[in-house]
Amino acid sequence: MNFISDNVVGASPRILAAMAAANEGTAGSYGADAWTARVEAQLNAFFEREVTVFMVATGTAANALCAAAICPPWGTLLTHRESHVIDDECGAPEFYMGGAKIVGLPGVGGKITPEIIDAHIANEPGGTRRPPLKGLSIAQGTEFGLIYSVPEIAALTAKAKQHGLRVHMDGARFSNALVTLGCTPAEMTWKAGIDVLSLGGTKNGCLMAEAVIFFDPALAEDFRFKRKRAGQTLSKQRLISAQFEAFFEADHWRELATHANAMAIRLANGLKAIPGIRLGWDQQINQVFPIVSQALWDHLAANGVKCIDWTELSLPPDNQAKPDEVVLRLVTSFVTKAEDVDALIALAKGFMSKK
Amino acid sequence: MNFISDNVVGASPRILAAMAAANEGTAGSYGADAWTARVEAQLNAFFEREVTVFMVATGTAANALCAAAICPPWGTLLTHRESHVIDDECGAPEFYMGGAKIVGLPGVGGKITPEIIDAHIANEPGGTRRPPLKGLSIAQGTEFGLIYSVPEIAALTAKAKQHGLRVHMDGARFSNALVTLGCTPAEMTWKAGIDVLSLGGTKNGCLMAEAVIFFDPALAEDFRFKRKRAGQTLSKQRLISAQFEAFFEADHWRELATHANAMAIRLANGLKAIPGIRLGWDQQINQVFPIVSQALWDHLAANGVKCIDWTELSLPPDNQAKPDEVVLRLVTSFVTKAEDVDALIALAKGFMSKK
Amino acid sequence: MNFISDNVVGASPRILAAMAAANEGTAGSYGADAWTARVEAQLNAFFEREVTVFMVATGTAANALCAAAICPPWGTLLTHRESHVIDDECGAPEFYMGGAKIVGLPGVGGKITPEIIDAHIANEPGGTRRPPLKGLSIAQGTEFGLIYSVPEIAALTAKAKQHGLRVHMDGARFSNALVTLGCTPAEMTWKAGIDVLSLGGTKNGCLMAEAVIFFDPALAEDFRFKRKRAGQTLSKQRLISAQFEAFFEADHWRELATHANAMAIRLANGLKAIPGIRLGWDQQINQVFPIVSQALWDHLAANGVKCIDWTELSLPPDNQAKPDEVVLRLVTSFVTKAEDVDALIALAKGFMSKK
Amino acid sequence: MNFISDNVVGASPRILAAMAAANEGTAGSYGADAWTARVEAQLNAFFEREVTVFMVATGTAANALCAAAICPPWGTLLTHRESHVIDDECGAPEFYMGGAKIVGLPGVGGKITPEIIDAHIANEPGGTRRPPLKGLSIAQGTEFGLIYSVPEIAALTAKAKQHGLRVHMDGARFSNALVTLGCTPAEMTWKAGIDVLSLGGTKNGCLMAEAVIFFDPALAEDFRFKRKRAGQTLSKQRLISAQFEAFFEADHWRELATHANAMAIRLANGLKAIPGIRLGWDQQINQVFPIVSQALWDHLAANGVKCIDWTELSLPPDNQAKPDEVVLRLVTSFVTKAEDVDALIALAKGFMSKK
Repeated sequence: MNFISDNVVGASPRILAAMAAANEGTAGSYGADAWTARVEAQLNAFFEREVTVFMVATGTAANALCAAAICPPWGTLLTHRESHVIDDECGAPEFYMGGAKIVGLPGVGGKITPEIIDAHIANEPGGTRRPPLKGLSIAQGTEFGLIYSVPEIAALTAKAKQHGLRVHMDGARFSNALVTLGCTPAEMTWKAGIDVLSLGGTKNGCLMAEAVIFFDPALAEDFRFKRKRAGQTLSKQRLISAQFEAFFEADHWRELATHANAMAIRLANGLKAIPGIRLGWDQQINQVFPIVSQALWDHLAANGVKCIDWTELSLPPDNQAKPDEVVLRLVTSFVTKAEDVDALIALAKGFMSKK
Repeated sequence: MNFISDNVVGASPRILAAMAAANEGTAGSYGADAWTARVEAQLNAFFEREVTVFMVATGTAANALCAAAICPPWGTLLTHRESHVIDDECGAPEFYMGGAKIVGLPGVGGKITPEIIDAHIANEPGGTRRPPLKGLSIAQGTEFGLIYSVPEIAALTAKAKQHGLRVHMDGARFSNALVTLGCTPAEMTWKAGIDVLSLGGTKNGCLMAEAVIFFDPALAEDFRFKRKRAGQTLSKQRLISAQFEAFFEADHWRELATHANAMAIRLANGLKAIPGIRLGWDQQINQVFPIVSQALWDHLAANGVKCIDWTELSLPPDNQAKPDEVVLRLVTSFVTKAEDVDALIALAKGFMSKK
Repeated sequence: MNFISDNVVGASPRILAAMAAANEGTAGSYGADAWTARVEAQLNAFFEREVTVFMVATGTAANALCAAAICPPWGTLLTHRESHVIDDECGAPEFYMGGAKIVGLPGVGGKITPEIIDAHIANEPGGTRRPPLKGLSIAQGTEFGLIYSVPEIAALTAKAKQHGLRVHMDGARFSNALVTLGCTPAEMTWKAGIDVLSLGGTKNGCLMAEAVIFFDPALAEDFRFKRKRAGQTLSKQRLISAQFEAFFEADHWRELATHANAMAIRLANGLKAIPGIRLGWDQQINQVFPIVSQALWDHLAANGVKCIDWTELSLPPDNQAKPDEVVLRLVTSFVTKAEDVDALIALAKGFMSKK
Repeated sequence: MNFISDNVVGASPRILAAMAAANEGTAGSYGADAWTARVEAQLNAFFEREVTVFMVATGTAANALCAAAICPPWGTLLTHRESHVIDDECGAPEFYMGGAKIVGLPGVGGKITPEIIDAHIANEPGGTRRPPLKGLSIAQGTEFGLIYSVPEIAALTAKAKQHGLRVHMDGARFSNALVTLGCTPAEMTWKAGIDVLSLGGTKNGCLMAEAVIFFDPALAEDFRFKRKRAGQTLSKQRLISAQFEAFFEADHWRELATHANAMAIRLANGLKAIPGIRLGWDQQINQVFPIVSQALWDHLAANGVKCIDWTELSLPPDNQAKPDEVVLRLVTSFVTKAEDVDALIALAKGFMSKK
C-alpha cells in the first residue's frame, strides 16, 4: 500500500514498449529525429495551435527553466508560499533564474487569487528597493491537491498581465487536472492566458518525460540554448520523445489519469465516510489529504501503509488540525489498485470503530 | 553508414532489458531504491575503493557539475582550448560554476602537458586581476580521439596539485580509453590523482546514463543538493541505475567498448593504407580523423557516408591540413558493423585510385 | 526638518578634511597605500584582535558580500522577514550569493530569537527538498530601530552554530547601537559569536565608507578576489581609507553617533509626552517610529516635515496600528539640530491639542 | 617618477572643491538630488542627444554592468583576448552577466577588426554547441594605448550589428581618446554605432566617478534595478555627481586629458629619439610602451622610476621583443610634471649612451 507519490511506480507498458521500439537503428541526436517531430505535431493538435516544445529530463528542470523564461535575474517571481517551486526544488528556480527573488504569497490550499496579488502589490514600496515583479508561477494542481477552474485561471492571468507579469503553469499533474475539469488543454492554458507550461509525463505513466510548452513564441527565443546550457538537452532525445508519443497517442494520458483520479475519489469517499476522519482539502485530483489522529497514522503505518505526513500550512482557517492530529498525503497513480485503496479504508475504519 | 557520433544509436539490448525489468512494482524515488544501491556497490568494486556516486541525465550536466565541484564562482578553471567543456556545452560549465572564468590552454590533439600549465602560470600577473586558479579539467579521450597514458595523467595531476588545483576527468568515452590503455579503472583515475570523474554510459550502450564519481569525499559534500538544484535528480532514478547495473554486470561495458574500438582500428588501418589519405591524429579510441581532399569528402557524402567535418585546430604542427583538405571525424560505436566500415574504406579506395 | 534618513546629509567636516588631505601626491592604488594600512591597524585596536578588513563603496555591497561569504549558491540564508537584506537591497544578496535561497523568519520589531530558529528548523522536511541552512544574517539595529543586547546576540549565535550556521551582522548603524549598549565593539561582535560584520560609516558621517570585517580568517579566504569581481575594489582606495581613519581617530565615530542618538531620544521623549501619540517600537538608536493619525501625518508633511510612512509589519501584537493610523519613521543624524527636533514636537503638540 | 597608472594620483583641485561644496545641507539620496539632475543635463549636451546615465563607483562595475546589458547569461560576449574586460577585472563581467561566455579575439595592439569578427564567425559550428553571440565590447583606448578612428569604430559596429551583436565601448580613458581624435563625443560613440559606454572620470581627475551611458533607451530598461542589485547605487550619490559636474563644467575634462596626453607625447618623443629604444605600439593617448633592455629597466627602477613590466602579447608581428627585452608601460596623468618626464628621458639617455 504505497501511497507516497506517483513517482514510486514505473512506466505504463505501452510507453515502455514504445521506448524499446524506438531503440533500433540510428537517428539524429539532440532532437533531430522523427519521434521528436511527431510529438511536436501531436502537441500542436493537443493544444489546437502551434506551440514550441522542449523536452527535458525532470520536472524540477522544467519548472526552473520556465521560471527563468518569464523572470530575469534582476526580477521577482511571485508564487504561492507553499508551492513546489519555492519549497521542494532545492533552489533550482533561484539557480536557473540567476539569482532572481522569489516571493511567496499566501492563499488557502496553495491557491493564489487576484485579490492576493493586489494586496501584495499595494504593499510594495516602489523605487528600487525590490526587484521588479516579472512573473507569476501557479500550480495546476497545487501541493494540496487543488486545481484552479478555467475562470479562476483567466482571472489570475488577467490580473498578472495588468501588472506586467508573465504566467507559468506548473503542470506536473496536468493530466489529472485536465481530467477533473473536463475542459480542453487549450482552455486550461493559453486560452486562459498561460504563457508557458511545464507538462509532466513522469508522474502519469512515463519513465522520464517532461516538457516545456511555450504558447508565446517570443518567450521561446533562445530557449534551445538555455536548455542545452542547463544540461537538459538529451543526446538520445528520441527515447524521451517515444514516451511522449505513446503518451499522447489515442489519449493514453487520459486513460492513465482517469484511473489515478478514480482511485483518489474512491479513497476520499471511503475515508470521509468514516466518523472522525475529515479531509484537509477537497479531493480534486489524484491526491487525498485526510486529517487523522496520530494514533490512526501510527496504526496505518504499522500495517504497511506508506504515505507522507504533510504540512498543515495552507489548511483553511475553519479546518485546522488539532494538536494531536496529522495531515496525511495519499497519492494514487495509474497503477494503484482498488484493492489497496479498499484495504487502506478498511484499516482506518477498523481502527476508528474500536475507539 | 552513420559515423556522426556514438549517440546516434539506441541502447544495448541487455541494458534495455534491464531497464524494462526494473519497471515493475514500486520503489523509493530519487535514488532510495535497490538498483541504485547495487550500482554504488558495483562502482566501489570497479574502482577498488569507496567512491561517492551521483547519476545524472546528461554528460553536459555531469561535466558542468564536476567543474562546479572543483572551481568556485570566483575561481578559474583551466582546460584545453578545444575541449568539449569549453566549446561544446553551450556555456553549461559557466552556468553551473556561477560565472567562474574558464581559460583554454594550448596543446596538440587536445592534450595538455605540465609544461603548458607552467607556461600559463608564469604569465599570470598576480594580484587580483584574475580569478585564482582552482581547477583543471582534462578529457580522457580528447575531442581529437587521443588519450593520456597513466604516467601522463599522474604528471598532470601532480603539476595541478602543486599549484593548488583540483582535477576533473571528462570520461564521456571512459570505457573506450580504458580498453585501449588496458589498465584498471583505479589506475586511470584516483591512483593517478584524479579528484572527480564524469563517467559516461550513454555513448557506450546506455539510453541515458551518466555518473559523477567523487574520489575525494570532501568534494562530494553537499553535492546531493547541488544535483537536485540543477534539476538532475531523477524521480524514477532506478531506471538510470538499472542501466548502469547491466552496464557494469559481467563487464558488459568492456565488451561494448572493445567492439567500438575494434571498428575504429579497422577503419583507421583501412584508411591509412590508401595512398593520399593520412590521419590527423593517431587512432586511439573509437574515433578516426582522416585528412582527405574535399573531393573525396564530397564523394563519400554523396554515397551515404555520414560524419562531421571537424576542426583543424589542434592538428600537430607537422601534420597540418592543406587548403583543399578537410579533417573528417568518424565515430564508431558498440553497434557499428564491420561491413559498414569496409564499405566506407572501399568507397574511399575506389575514389582515390581513380585520381 | 528632513528626517527621511541618515543618508540625506553630507560628511562630517573632519572626515571631509581628511579626504582632501589624502588627495595630495601619489599612492599605491587598490589599497596598497598608507591610509589603508593605518585603518587596518585602527580596526585591530578597535576590535581588540586581528581582523581582516575590506572596504567597499556601499552598504548593499557590504551586506551582499557578507551573505555570500557565509552562504554558498546551493545554501539557504536565514534572516528576518522584514530585514533590509531581504526587502531593501533589490536582490543584491541573491545576486552575490549566486542564487542561494533566502528565508525570512518572523519576530517582533525585526528581531529573531533562538526559539524562532528552532521552530523553523523543526518544520524543515529534510532530504534534498530545500537548500541546506548555511548562514544567519541579523541586523544591529533592525529596520525598526531595535537592537540586540549582548546576551541576545550570544544566544542567537550559539543557536546558529548548533545548526552549523555562520552568522553575519548588518551593522549599517553599528555606531549607534554601540553607543546605546555602552559595551565594547568586541563584546558586541566576535566575543558574542559574530563571524562577519558589515560596518557602516556612511550613515554616521562619512561620504561613502563601508567595511566588511572578518573575525574568522577562514571566511576571508579569497575575499579579495570576490570583492574585485564584484566591482567593489576602488582604485583610489586611500580616499575611502582616509575617511575611516578620521572616523576612528579619537573616537570621532562615537561623538557623531552619540549626537544622533541624543536627538532621537529627545524626539522620542517629546512625542511620547503628547497625548494620542505612542511609539511603534521603543527608541533605541537614531530612529523613532511614532504611530500617529493620518491627519497628524498630513499636518506635519504640510508643514515641512520629511519622513517615511513605514511598514506596520513587525509591530508588537499588543501595539497594532488602527485603520486610520500610520507608522512614521523619523531618522536623526550627526547633524540633526535640536531646534528641528523641537519644532517637530511643537508641530505635533499643537495639532494634537487642538483636536 | 611614478608612471604606474593614472589612478595613483588624487583628484583635480577643482573637482575636490566641488565635492566639498556639495557636502552641505540635506539632499535626496540615491540620485534624487540637484547635482545628479545637472550632470544628466550636461551629458545630454555633451553627447548632443538624450542619453540615459547611471553613475557607479568603479570602472570594473561600469564595464561589467555594460557587458550584462548587452549579453544575457546564455549568450557570448566577444572582446579582444587581451582586453581589460577579459584579463583585468577578476571575472566581474562573468559574474555580472550571470555566467555568459566571453570569447577573446586576436588583433594587434588590442584592436579588433571586422575581418577578425568574420573569421571567428566563419568557424562557429552552429547548432547549440556554443552560446549565441550577443555582444561586442571594445576598448577606446586599448590596453596597449591604441585607439580606434571614428571610421574604424563605425565599421566594427556595422559588422557587429550585421551579426546581431550590440556594442559596448570601454571608455576608462575616454577623455584621452577624444582629445587625440579631436572629434565630438557623439561622433566617437552613438553616431558611430556604439550602444552603451563606460565613461571613466577616475583616471582623468575625479576621486571616484564612473558612468554608464546608454544611447539605446531599450537597453537601459530596468537598469536602475540592475545597478542597485549590484551594490552600485550610492546613497550619497550627489558626491559622485558633484565630481562629474565639475569634470564637465567648462570642459575641465579636456584640460586634464590634454595635459596627460601632452606628457605622453613628450615622453614618447624623448624615448624614441634615443638610439636602442623603440616603442611597442604607437603613442596615441596617455600611455607609452617602450621596448627596452632588461638592463635599462633595472637602471630606471634603481633610480626611482615606477612603472609596470607589460605583456608582449599583442605586439605587431614585425616589432616583437627580443629575449633580453621588456615592454614597459608608462602612464601619464593630469598631474604628471614635465620635469619628471624629462628626468626619465635623461636617465634612459644617459644609460644608453654609456653602453
